[in-house]
Formats: sequence, structure tokens, C-alpha cells
Amino acid sequence: MGLLFQKMTILGVGLVGGSLALACKTRGLVGEICGVGRGRANLEKARALGVVDAVMQDPAEGVRGADLVVLATPVGSFVSLVKAIAPALRPGVIVTDVGSVKGDLVRELEDLMPPGARFVGSHPIAGSERFGVEAASPLLFEGAQCVLTPTSRTDRQAFSRIKVLWEQVGSLIVEMDPHTHDRVFAAVSHLPHVVAYALVEAVLGRPGGEDLAAFVAGGFRDVTRIASSHPDLWRDICLRNRESLLREIEGFQTILSRFREAIAREDGEDLFRRFEAARKARERLQDKGET
Amino acid sequence: MGLLFQKMTILGVGLVGGSLALACKTRGLVGEICGVGRGRANLEKARALGVVDAVMQDPAEGVRGADLVVLATPVGSFVSLVKAIAPALRPGVIVTDVGSVKGDLVRELEDLMPPGARFVGSHPIAGSERFGVEAASPLLFEGAQCVLTPTSRTDRQAFSRIKVLWEQVGSLIVEMDPHTHDRVFAAVSHLPHVVAYALVEAVLGRPGGEDLAAFVAGGFRDVTRIASSHPDLWRDICLRNRESLLREIEGFQTILSRFREAIAREDGEDLFRRFEAARKARERLQDKGET
Repeated sequence: MGLLFQKMTILGVGLVGGSLALACKTRGLVGEICGVGRGRANLEKARALGVVDAVMQDPAEGVRGADLVVLATPVGSFVSLVKAIAPALRPGVIVTDVGSVKGDLVRELEDLMPPGARFVGSHPIAGSERFGVEAASPLLFEGAQCVLTPTSRTDRQAFSRIKVLWEQVGSLIVEMDPHTHDRVFAAVSHLPHVVAYALVEAVLGRPGGEDLAAFVAGGFRDVTRIASSHPDLWRDICLRNRESLLREIEGFQTILSRFREAIAREDGEDLFRRFEAARKARERLQDKGET
Repeated sequence: MGLLFQKMTILGVGLVGGSLALACKTRGLVGEICGVGRGRANLEKARALGVVDAVMQDPAEGVRGADLVVLATPVGSFVSLVKAIAPALRPGVIVTDVGSVKGDLVRELEDLMPPGARFVGSHPIAGSERFGVEAASPLLFEGAQCVLTPTSRTDRQAFSRIKVLWEQVGSLIVEMDPHTHDRVFAAVSHLPHVVAYALVEAVLGRPGGEDLAAFVAGGFRDVTRIASSHPDLWRDICLRNRESLLREIEGFQTILSRFREAIAREDGEDLFRRFEAARKARERLQDKGET
């Protein structure tokens, strides 16, 4: 495949943005890559690692001449970032993102596009608890899902080009309405993150919690691994997917209370039934490719 | 090191019991190993795999002549099992266990020892979500903690011999009062398991939950891995460590409600502070040897 875009500007050169840059570069999908970020040191690291060709601290300058702009900062900054770059976007540019929240945000971003600029929402399901450009890999998207969230206002040609971009870096494309996306990921991703953070606070954050750390085994480590994720990112996700996430937390609390009540009334049968059902549901996931 | 025991009988030849048998056998620590269990097929598998030398379905027959008896079934069966074997225990025998709950159970088991039989509580911190004798490994205890829970009634000579046994299979010994043990493991192990089970039920157990499974990524898999654990085992642990576990679940629910309230009032600062504190606490765990 030849060049898909002449100049790609990535706003936020962290794990996901950096990996997309590397994936496009190693496959020759884009002509030139400009990385934009607030931190000079991180940008220089990205350039030294060969992740980007040029770096800029001013977003508007960074997107000048770009025919592809990728928002790869925490979702809470998308609106102000797009307001800042809008005057500098050239006609025909496609703006996409890698954010974990869509919903109303997609409509807001569509509204902010200047004439001739097209927005297409993307969410590659390929993060990890690691972060920063040092962790970037050209293989991050290989075999991973990428959810695209077109709306009635999405330009079909722009959509097709973004779809090809993600396919070329190895993603499996799923199309989803922006609000459906947020309900699904509130359940399978955002809730587990909040639960993991709360579990770490509950166990290690108590008075004397440091002493408990000595007895932590594999189970706690597994459950809480994602609590090492980037706090900025997750604050923004929680705030931006607030309603769906609140519903999920409430639903989880109801289920957890049922476990608590079964333990309180010493109902071994109910506990066994719930544990067994959860084990079976969890094992069906493993069948889908986990080792 | 020469023989520590002439005949070891393991009641329950699963992951932990089977691994202890293999670890003792490969190091020549015991003369003969008898495996006891209810399931004929599993026992035959254990013998075929070379985990045990002889197998018995009747616990009392199995412990005859043994100078070491290890309780390695789910903790809920310990009392009835010890009642069944007590008449067949020979004087001088040491009975130990590998259970995840101690507390009052240790006193109950001590009370059930016939004259000349000595009980010493052990808890090797070395399970996993895998189970069954097929998963047994002679290296399971290598470098792992083993908590011993002596009481004022514990025979010091018996305690020393059990300590040497665990040390010889590679364990790092920690001594703890039985009730302290239960409070500590309610927090670092039992709570995370219940949370993982509840999360699987909340996400995958809802109407339409099977459709959500398609979008589950690494985070959810990590958080819920331990929900594949053995339901019998965890039912018994929940019931036997009921009070400490209920306190832990309530404590966790309080913390989770604080996250929920911060999201509801859109308090990004509070969320950031909590996420950052949890991330730091979680990362200190990694410093202790996780890759």
C-alpha cells in the first residue's frame, strides 16, 4: 500500500499516539509525522526514538499542512485542543482520535470542525497500564479491535480512509454508535478500572496498609494491575463517561452487596452458584484466545 | 537433608496438595506418600503422574501409619475430615494443613487431635486460579511465603519440623497469630477474589452480557482472572472467614462509593488525587519483584 496521508500530526505522543506513529512509519503509510505535546523533554525523546520526524509545542503550528490529525491526549483536553487548532486546519483534513469516550463528545467535536475538515471517531482497544512514548510499539494494534463511531454527519469518504488506516496497522474494525460505545466500554473497561483503583485504596491506602503489602500475592497483583494506569487519562474518562459509568458502578455495588448478604447469612449454596457462574463466564473469555 | 517423615498422607490431591507431594518427592524429604480423595479418577491421575505412591478413598485408612498428615481439601471440610481420621492417627503424628483460613478453625482442629497427635497450621501463599493435580508443580512453593500460625498450645518440636518441611520445599516462613492471619488475608486475598467474582457477574452475567464479552480487553481479563478459581474453595473461605471478610467488603464499598460520589459531583481533582495515590501504592508493589 502506498501513502495514505502526506502529513500526519499526532497531538499527544504517548503510548497510543506514539505507537500509531511507529506503526504508520514502519509500514510507509504516511509521508511525514509531526508530534505535538506540551513537554519538551517527551517530544525530544519521541524524536530521538524515531517515533516522529518533527516536533512542535504549539498545536496550531503542528497541524499546519496536515491532511491527518490524531487527537491522542487524555479525552478531557479534546475540546480545547480542537478549538485551538481549528483556525489552522487546512480544507480536506481528516481529524480522528484514539479516545476511550465517544458519546456527546463526538457531536461536540463535529460541531467544532471548520468548513472542509471532517471528524471520524476512533477508539483502538489497545492500551495497557504502561504509558509514555518509551512504551510505544509499532505492533500495538496488531490483531486488536478498533471501534469506529460514525454518525449521520460523518463524511463517508473520510470514514473509509480512517478505516483503511486502522486496518493497515493491523486493527480489526468494529462500527458502533457513539453512545452505544460509551455504554459498552463503561461496563467492560471503565468500571474495572475504577474497581481496581478503589481496591488498591481500600487495601493499601488504609492506616497500616503498607504492612499488608508484604502479603500481597498474585491475585491482588492481577486484580489491581490496571490501577497503575495514567491518572489524567482515567480522570477524564470518568468525567466524560459519567452517566454510563455511574450506572455501572451502581450495578456492580448491587451485585457485590448480594455476595456480602450471602456471606452474612452463611448461604453457601448461593455463593457456590454465583462463583461457579462467574467462573464459567470467565472461562468462556479464555476460550477466545487468552493463554 | 535426609528423610523428614516416613509416611506423608495428603488429604486432597489438587494443585497445592499435589505440589507439596511433588516437592517433597523430588527432594527426598519423605519416605512414602499416600494421596486421599473422593474422586477415583483424580487419584489415579495423581498416581499416574507420579505425584503420590499410593491412593486411598477412605481418609482413616489413608492416614494409618502416617507420621505427617496434610489437610489439602477446601477448608470447609477440615473439621469433618479430622473427626473421621482422628481414631486412626498414630501417636506422634503431626497434622498440618494448607488452608487459607485459620482463626477459630485452628482451635477447633487442636481440640479434635487425639492424645499424641499435634496440629500445626500452615498457609502456603502459592495458589493460582489454576487447580487440579494436573497443574501441580514441585516448584510451586519456591520463593513463596508460607504463613505458620502457632498458638499457645502448639507443640514446639512439631512446629519446628513443619517449619523445616516448608523451608526445604523453598518457602519463606512467616509466623502469625491465627486471627491476625485471617484479618490480613481477608484484605489482601479474600476481598479481591469476591470483587473479581462480583465484577464478572455484574458485567458478563447481565442480560446481553455475552455480547459484551466481544469487547473485553486486557484490563478486564487481568481484574477477573482469579474469578476462574475453584468455587468450592472460595465458598468455604468466605464462610470460614466471614466476619473479617464482611468488614473488608464493607470497607471497600465505602471507598468505591467515594469514587462514585466524586464522579457524580464531577470532582476531577479528587479523582486525580485518588487515582494517583492508588497508582503510587500499586507501583511500590511492583518494586518488590514483579516484572
